[in-house]
Amino acid sequence: MPIAHPLKTLLAAGALALLSTGQALAETTGQNGELRGTGDLGVVIERATGSVALVDTTARTVLRHVEGFGDLSHASVKFTRDARHAFVFGRDGGLTKLDLLTGEIDGRVVQSGNSIGGAISQDGRFVAVGNYEPGGVKVFDTETMELVVDVPADYEKADGTITQAKVVGVVDAPGNRFVFSLFEAGEIWTLDMSGDEPVLDKHRDVGREPYDALITANGRYYIAGLFGEDGMALLDLWYPEHGVQRILPDYGQGEERLPVYKMPHLEGWAMAGDLAFFPAVGRHEVLVADSDDWSLVGRIPVQGQPIFVMSRPDERQVWVTFAHPDNGRVQVIDTQSLEVIETLAPGESILHKEFTPRGEHIWISARDSNQVVVYDTRTFEELARLPAQSPSGIFFTNRAHRIGL
Amino acid sequence: MPIAHPLKTLLAAGALALLSTGQALAETTGQNGELRGTGDLGVVIERATGSVALVDTTARTVLRHVEGFGDLSHASVKFTRDARHAFVFGRDGGLTKLDLLTGEIDGRVVQSGNSIGGAISQDGRFVAVGNYEPGGVKVFDTETMELVVDVPADYEKADGTITQAKVVGVVDAPGNRFVFSLFEAGEIWTLDMSGDEPVLDKHRDVGREPYDALITANGRYYIAGLFGEDGMALLDLWYPEHGVQRILPDYGQGEERLPVYKMPHLEGWAMAGDLAFFPAVGRHEVLVADSDDWSLVGRIPVQGQPIFVMSRPDERQVWVTFAHPDNGRVQVIDTQSLEVIETLAPGESILHKEFTPRGEHIWISARDSNQVVVYDTRTFEELARLPAQSPSGIFFTNRAHRIGL
Repeated sequence: MPIAHPLKTLLAAGALALLSTGQALAETTGQNGELRGTGDLGVVIERATGSVALVDTTARTVLRHVEGFGDLSHASVKFTRDARHAFVFGRDGGLTKLDLLTGEIDGRVVQSGNSIGGAISQDGRFVAVGNYEPGGVKVFDTETMELVVDVPADYEKADGTITQAKVVGVVDAPGNRFVFSLFEAGEIWTLDMSGDEPVLDKHRDVGREPYDALITANGRYYIAGLFGEDGMALLDLWYPEHGVQRILPDYGQGEERLPVYKMPHLEGWAMAGDLAFFPAVGRHEVLVADSDDWSLVGRIPVQGQPIFVMSRPDERQVWVTFAHPDNGRVQVIDTQSLEVIETLAPGESILHKEFTPRGEHIWISARDSNQVVVYDTRTFEELARLPAQSPSGIFFTNRAHRIGL
Repeated sequence: MPIAHPLKTLLAAGALALLSTGQALAETTGQNGELRGTGDLGVVIERATGSVALVDTTARTVLRHVEGFGDLSHASVKFTRDARHAFVFGRDGGLTKLDLLTGEIDGRVVQSGNSIGGAISQDGRFVAVGNYEPGGVKVFDTETMELVVDVPADYEKADGTITQAKVVGVVDAPGNRFVFSLFEAGEIWTLDMSGDEPVLDKHRDVGREPYDALITANGRYYIAGLFGEDGMALLDLWYPEHGVQRILPDYGQGEERLPVYKMPHLEGWAMAGDLAFFPAVGRHEVLVADSDDWSLVGRIPVQGQPIFVMSRPDERQVWVTFAHPDNGRVQVIDTQSLEVIETLAPGESILHKEFTPRGEHIWISARDSNQVVVYDTRTFEELARLPAQSPSGIFFTNRAHRIGL
């Protein structure tokens, strides 16, 4: 059973390093914005230079590069509900609000020592950031970037002392909730922002060391991967009173495996009809589960250790990226035959990929080639090769309109 | 088996009444556009005045009214892939391109005598219009509004003469295809725009008088309702070589029924998990089918003859509007209990409804109250009541990024 914790709302942001809210930083271009739709824009993280490339998916071009985001290793991005601004979550705890139309930074808060990502609430009013150091979640107003709620990730250690856990797997869920996991504590918390006061529910003993999580496209199932033991922790947000269940009990250590070069990402789980496609840990396989009962129904051999396993929006294909040393290739699985139908070599150190909203193209970042490569997903024809500085994450604005993205 | 028909591409638009492309009409406001994101914009059809209301779903306001669209009874709207422009399909055969940022009409073509809707291709380059009079489909370039392809809906009547059928149920599908149905001919055609030359495939004898159709969210199944006989026609676009199958054999005339005040819309089919919710014809019921085998698995009693049956984006609720004389109320079904959990009375002559992209709100048009009413879908609290002239269809820009919408 969840435990309800009403929280005190913080109205002042005194403890934060609030920089430059509402004004452009020197690093930006200073150009006036262009009158244009924002439905075909996107952001590519350039990790080496702490910059981002603003891209246009219709023209397949880089519109401009914007600097001033701090440490962007493992950075991620969420878009405001009007698809005008991107919030960039930096590894250095920086939360930066970028105006996609002007290319200016409209606000930047260094809100912790080390953060790993966040989410924007269903109603668009709040942005939550999950922190490693010192742990916890901070929630800001998306308009003003003022701190609204500070949720310390306190838990009781075996010796009785209270300390903070690292927070991972922060997602938005329907009902204006945020859901996230506490690594050291083995807990999953939900933060309900729908009322006048936020309400915190805690699910305890969900499993050892949840290290990442995903939420299904309808916002119903929150699934956390466990670093410290086998299996995964599933919370059905339609029935939180049922508590957290364990699924896929052999997932992880239970499998005899190769050395793990990199833990796979969970956000990339692909759903196609009743099937969920996801990366095996350390094995050269994509696993297939029946999403009705989360039983394992198949293993698809692939050319390396899978990292991101993502379905094309029409669910007919699943595209897979890989860990070192097999990270120069991308494979495509047909969700009907469950076979690899294509292997592509876009460049060196493939880190991320993003489908255009209706799936006709895919954009792939080849970090060590300093390129983003665009393919036609039907013909596998290469359509464009765009310059970017050590590109990693690619995020398109249609995510603004999707639950959990 | 489909029959392939290569088509001649038309490069000139000589046969069309091309009006005012690229310039504003006198009816528009003339204001300069506002620099803003287009992700939270929408269009409400004002049928009595041939105008539309541009709306902002964040502020929940009408930004402006724009006139000059001709006859907007049964009008529908599609958005360009950058979410800057709306194409409005008028009943008078008018295809009008509206700039959401400036409120100006960027082009208008009266391309037939009577049209019922259309679709924009997956790659955003083409807009197809289905016509009643004289029948057929015309495809235009979304940028220039020049005619690209003219597809007469020719078929052979029983007496051997060739004539055109009314075209209904035009949708976009993955692979840059359009799919549509021929009412008098009983055929479903696909038009593939992915190559240098368009390719037409015809499925014949699909059933008597397909009158409307839908495509599932993943773009796989095209389902046409039949006016002239029982059942529905299903085309699996992943396996077009399997031909068109009949599903739900008792749907329609086979059921003992009340007088039908209005044929239900099919575009509104709600999918929630494995279940499809759809309106019974003439009965006070919402039907539930298993989408794995399309068998009927349930009937949910409702307060009138259902017209639009639409699922909230998180699939937990299905919202139902009704035919006269029960069209002053809207009912909400819980997709878990399969029971009506709420009945709302937003106003007189409820015609359409649209969820905000992540489902926190719903906008409902009450034509004879001259209002659009906004509700919180969790609490059912009324949030806003906006003025509009005989509002009917409501369309939000996130549709730009969805297959079949």
